[in-house]
Amino acid sequence: MALPIKPNGKIKYLQCIRCGETYPVDDYFEGCPKCRDEGNPANLTFVYAEYGKECPLPYDSYFSLGEGNTPLLTVFDEFPSFYLKYEGRNPSGSHKDRMSAMIVTRAAEKGYEGVAVATSGNAGLSLASYCAYFGLKCAVIATKDLNPQVRRFLEAFGAEIHLTDTPMERWEILKRKKEEGFYPGSNYSNPPVGTVHFGVQGYKAVAYEIVGQLKGTVPAKVLVPASRGDLLWGIWLGFKEMKQADPSLALPAMIACEPFARLSRVLAGEDYTRSFPGETALKSIDGTTVTYQAVKALRESNGFAIEISNEEAEAARKELAKRGILLELSSAASYGAYKKLRKNGAIGEKEVVVAIGTSSGFVEI
Amino acid sequence: MALPIKPNGKIKYLQCIRCGETYPVDDYFEGCPKCRDEGNPANLTFVYAEYGKECPLPYDSYFSLGEGNTPLLTVFDEFPSFYLKYEGRNPSGSHKDRMSAMIVTRAAEKGYEGVAVATSGNAGLSLASYCAYFGLKCAVIATKDLNPQVRRFLEAFGAEIHLTDTPMERWEILKRKKEEGFYPGSNYSNPPVGTVHFGVQGYKAVAYEIVGQLKGTVPAKVLVPASRGDLLWGIWLGFKEMKQADPSLALPAMIACEPFARLSRVLAGEDYTRSFPGETALKSIDGTTVTYQAVKALRESNGFAIEISNEEAEAARKELAKRGILLELSSAASYGAYKKLRKNGAIGEKEVVVAIGTSSGFVEI
Ligand SMILES: [Zn+2]
Ligand SMILES: [Zn+2]
Repeated sequence: MALPIKPNGKIKYLQCIRCGETYPVDDYFEGCPKCRDEGNPANLTFVYAEYGKECPLPYDSYFSLGEGNTPLLTVFDEFPSFYLKYEGRNPSGSHKDRMSAMIVTRAAEKGYEGVAVATSGNAGLSLASYCAYFGLKCAVIATKDLNPQVRRFLEAFGAEIHLTDTPMERWEILKRKKEEGFYPGSNYSNPPVGTVHFGVQGYKAVAYEIVGQLKGTVPAKVLVPASRGDLLWGIWLGFKEMKQADPSLALPAMIACEPFARLSRVLAGEDYTRSFPGETALKSIDGTTVTYQAVKALRESNGFAIEISNEEAEAARKELAKRGILLELSSAASYGAYKKLRKNGAIGEKEVVVAIGTSSGFVEI
Repeated sequence: MALPIKPNGKIKYLQCIRCGETYPVDDYFEGCPKCRDEGNPANLTFVYAEYGKECPLPYDSYFSLGEGNTPLLTVFDEFPSFYLKYEGRNPSGSHKDRMSAMIVTRAAEKGYEGVAVATSGNAGLSLASYCAYFGLKCAVIATKDLNPQVRRFLEAFGAEIHLTDTPMERWEILKRKKEEGFYPGSNYSNPPVGTVHFGVQGYKAVAYEIVGQLKGTVPAKVLVPASRGDLLWGIWLGFKEMKQADPSLALPAMIACEPFARLSRVLAGEDYTRSFPGETALKSIDGTTVTYQAVKALRESNGFAIEISNEEAEAARKELAKRGILLELSSAASYGAYKKLRKNGAIGEKEVVVAIGTSSGFVEI
């Protein structure tokens, strides 16, 4: 089904989040050309003529399947100031649908025949379903250990599936698909910049929804399962834009939940363009790289990164399921982080904290 | 998490949908005592003091996880007057969540320690998650061929699981669990009456949402996958109550999609209390019995029942998935019915028709 596409008339330009250089609106899949040439890849972002109560997106009218407006749930009587933003309620079961709505709209607007994505599962399911509904092709590139159930869903949606031996090989195939006329729905540069700025804009609404659901309160901390940090950065952008519209608003500290030290090493002084080897069962936040956008969200917000082990995520997942909320393992890392930070005192009893539950567990287990 | 419970102050009484006898509000799990004693079991329903634009429910404040307000999707360019009401967007992935919200609220209000349900899957997932969230126990009774993935989800939610050799044995165990202090979340009488009237009330909102989403238009026909017809009857009740508030409104014909002849045989003259053997892969609408409520919805609305084979449902499921909408097999029966009725001329090209897509396919395939 095609829907009308209407770009937001209040977009001024794109701006590099690292060097500040401005650019006319375009795709710049490898981020800021200047920073890339210097060997310091960084994403671009949209600058709007004005900010208000509504979350500005690149499109006023776009390809939506009803993503967003997910519930903010209290879960534990013993943690009354802990909230779970349950992104599993999105159409394909994860936060990625917010990104897909923007990316599939952009791909259609520019006449691409399809969208290609390197994924461990959620982004593939999301883009495959959005592409199927809105009449675009979808190519999904994953490693050979792709969950067989996810593979059956992708096949049902009619996606073209490519399986590789290593995660990095996915980016090579994605680059090739781009040359064949597919819009890249995820990063393919190495060192990475993150998902194209059109996609990341979709995540800003999470911040607006949280503050609305908390009746105007900005949480002290927001816990986000993170790898290349599209969601982490997108939510942070949302909070910053809300503050531009209303300077009296507070800003939260953004906290990245990562399966092994990557962002924490960069915050401690290592170069963000290097690689950080590690092993994890948290497949949705796996990967050996970080991005400038993720580091910037943590630095600007006076946040930090916390490591969550497989065992901590599994324990968190089990506790949430016993309260009726089924998350995938990677998504439970944010509640695992809450418990860990309460225990070590980094989060106080009365601090309002929101953990992002990025994806439903209905597909995974 | 406990939430405040507030009964609807405008409830007048319960009324038998067959003999018209009225009763004070209570559970009457076996339906109207008078009709049951005559051997013609029939459900009771709520009568309210007034009807308006809002759907009246037994509670003004109840245990909700954000069920309802599901999208009404156009899917096929070639069928512009065909709409899919996509109930897979409910919290646990099916329409059953609308019922669970009411049942779990009622069970808590009356001080039951838990809810027990005989199910092939969806009602179990739904009640197990609602009970887990709102602090009640849940006992799920299914046959031994229960999908192993559904079983893992139920275990994660902490449900007590009972497996039987035959579907009918489930009702025996459910009756026993009721005697042990569990609120019955599904029918256990034989011949059946359907789910308790508190639960069925949750489905009425589907009618209100459809008319709202169609900007005031009442569809000519509503296609509902049906077995004991809780949803079929609940939606019909909703349309009737809307017409009580606004007599200028039209009423749709309700069409039951069944896997083999049951309701169609009753409409042709057979007794609704007998059993109708048959085999099907459409497990969510399996079963050898019908109910008075299902027959009444079809008769009152000048509707009918249509048989959908495994192959027709599978073809419908595949077509919908290729358009980005993943339904379980039983749920796809309603689109299968649309195609069949368009082909044989029973549905015209311009008739506005809504098919209920009862459940997401993310659990099943
Ligand atoms: Zn730059
Ligand atoms: Zn009666």
